[in-house]
Amino acid sequence: MSLLVVGSVAMDSIFTPFGETADALGGSAVYFSVAGSLLHPVQVVGVVGSDYPVHELDALAARGIDWSGVEHAEGESFRWKGKYSYDLQSRETLETRLGVFARFQPKIPASFRSAEYVFLGNIDPELQLGVLTQVERPRLVVCDTMNYWIQGKKSALLELLARVDVLMVNDSEARELSSDWNIHRAGRWILRQGPSRVVIKQGEYGALLIEPHRTFYVPAFPLETVFDPTGAGDAFAGGFMAYLARTGSLAEDNIRRAMVYGAAMGSYAVEQFGIKGFEQVTLDAVERRVRAFQDLTHVELAERLP
Amino acid sequence: MSLLVVGSVAMDSIFTPFGETADALGGSAVYFSVAGSLLHPVQVVGVVGSDYPVHELDALAARGIDWSGVEHAEGESFRWKGKYSYDLQSRETLETRLGVFARFQPKIPASFRSAEYVFLGNIDPELQLGVLTQVERPRLVVCDTMNYWIQGKKSALLELLARVDVLMVNDSEARELSSDWNIHRAGRWILRQGPSRVVIKQGEYGALLIEPHRTFYVPAFPLETVFDPTGAGDAFAGGFMAYLARTGSLAEDNIRRAMVYGAAMGSYAVEQFGIKGFEQVTLDAVERRVRAFQDLTHVELAERLP
Repeated sequence: MSLLVVGSVAMDSIFTPFGETADALGGSAVYFSVAGSLLHPVQVVGVVGSDYPVHELDALAARGIDWSGVEHAEGESFRWKGKYSYDLQSRETLETRLGVFARFQPKIPASFRSAEYVFLGNIDPELQLGVLTQVERPRLVVCDTMNYWIQGKKSALLELLARVDVLMVNDSEARELSSDWNIHRAGRWILRQGPSRVVIKQGEYGALLIEPHRTFYVPAFPLETVFDPTGAGDAFAGGFMAYLARTGSLAEDNIRRAMVYGAAMGSYAVEQFGIKGFEQVTLDAVERRVRAFQDLTHVELAERLP
Repeated sequence: MSLLVVGSVAMDSIFTPFGETADALGGSAVYFSVAGSLLHPVQVVGVVGSDYPVHELDALAARGIDWSGVEHAEGESFRWKGKYSYDLQSRETLETRLGVFARFQPKIPASFRSAEYVFLGNIDPELQLGVLTQVERPRLVVCDTMNYWIQGKKSALLELLARVDVLMVNDSEARELSSDWNIHRAGRWILRQGPSRVVIKQGEYGALLIEPHRTFYVPAFPLETVFDPTGAGDAFAGGFMAYLARTGSLAEDNIRRAMVYGAAMGSYAVEQFGIKGFEQVTLDAVERRVRAFQDLTHVELAERLP
């Protein structure tokens, strides 16, 4: 059950009230694969420039991340610089330098084309569509997007939605895409465009799984220390997809389980700067955390009201 | 197991994108008792002016609401006028006329003093303390407050916190009270002031129950139509307290059940204008809705990771 992610491999410079990092490993494909590889091997397709600290990627290969689909291009790597507000509720982009990412045309290596689980990270929807023409017959395609593409490439995005199984976005993206502020109506609107499920991430609150006749909610893990929200959504996606690839079942109950593994990975992402939160995490720790999630919403109602 | 609420009995004029009401029944004690009385009789202490549509309160008495503790004073009733934003995420107070509420000194009738479950609605913490000197030995005291008192009557509020079992506030109030933006640390700070539990309401997202060694989360009910958020927090409190009064158990598991009944009542409050959402609700409907809440977060993890 191979798992493929196509997305950005970047260098992030992040300022939070608790410290800062410069040119640290980042990007959707990096967060996705670092989180996902705790549960299942991950194949990555992306691009880096000639300045990228490739040895840092190589060091992560032992976790089960196959970087052989990452193209090495002449020029600068994708760099993002951002600053969070004192309460981490909002962030400001200080600088975006696309570098080699501006000309990125994902080429899926022959050995990756049979991937059964495919995650299309947040890139131009035309490129996301291009990936779908290169993979053979995935069992599950999940895609992310952002306001930039919703505004600028709406028709390509709608064409993509008709061809994916799950759209995974945050609440403001779902609202903007559907032009509806009610998140449940927004979810239904998205379902009508093609996906059989929508996952809507709500930051510090949690995440919703909206299906045609049922809704599931997983709250965010209660954390008293949050250092850096960057990458939480991609780590969520990595945990979600890797759990499904590992277990091989797309049954409704298993999708709910995958949501909890996703939420657990999101919680590790925000506990430390960058991908540091994953360095010491063991599978045992993951298992304890998903059980804590279960306790967080556990309630047994009486058979009938006394 | 008698249940007492002390709070405002007001007339609300509300503007939302979906319509408006003028001089409709409102106030914390009204929302609390209309919601709570679905599960258990409620005794109310408050004050109304000579202009109050008392016949409308009387019509609600058949639900099990005892209004005999509501004082009838000379003068105008408490009036609140507010306007919600297009997405119901924020509201602006257009007018507050305290009227007879400005001189409100809660007097608990002799027949209410043995109340075992006491809810102190959002009024001056000095008056909330005054209520506690009049009741005999309640099993559970829950109080609400707001930013106005946090800013203006902090020391009285801290004195009150040392004497209540549960503080029930919304997230911005918890943050302001504790001077901590992290909601879990804010909850711990409040626990150190005296309450054994804190309930933090998060509007459209849900509500947290923070206890010294455990946290519970109940999401908001997924509603595709939300008309008027007014009173949702007081309806939540009414459902929470009335469930506890009805079942008579303060065991941890039962408090979690009470959170779900509270969330169900909050959902009825927002589905219609004012207290209209409760007019047609039956106990059977409540039971179906709390079961839907359980399904909303239901997940069964595998014994061990495959």
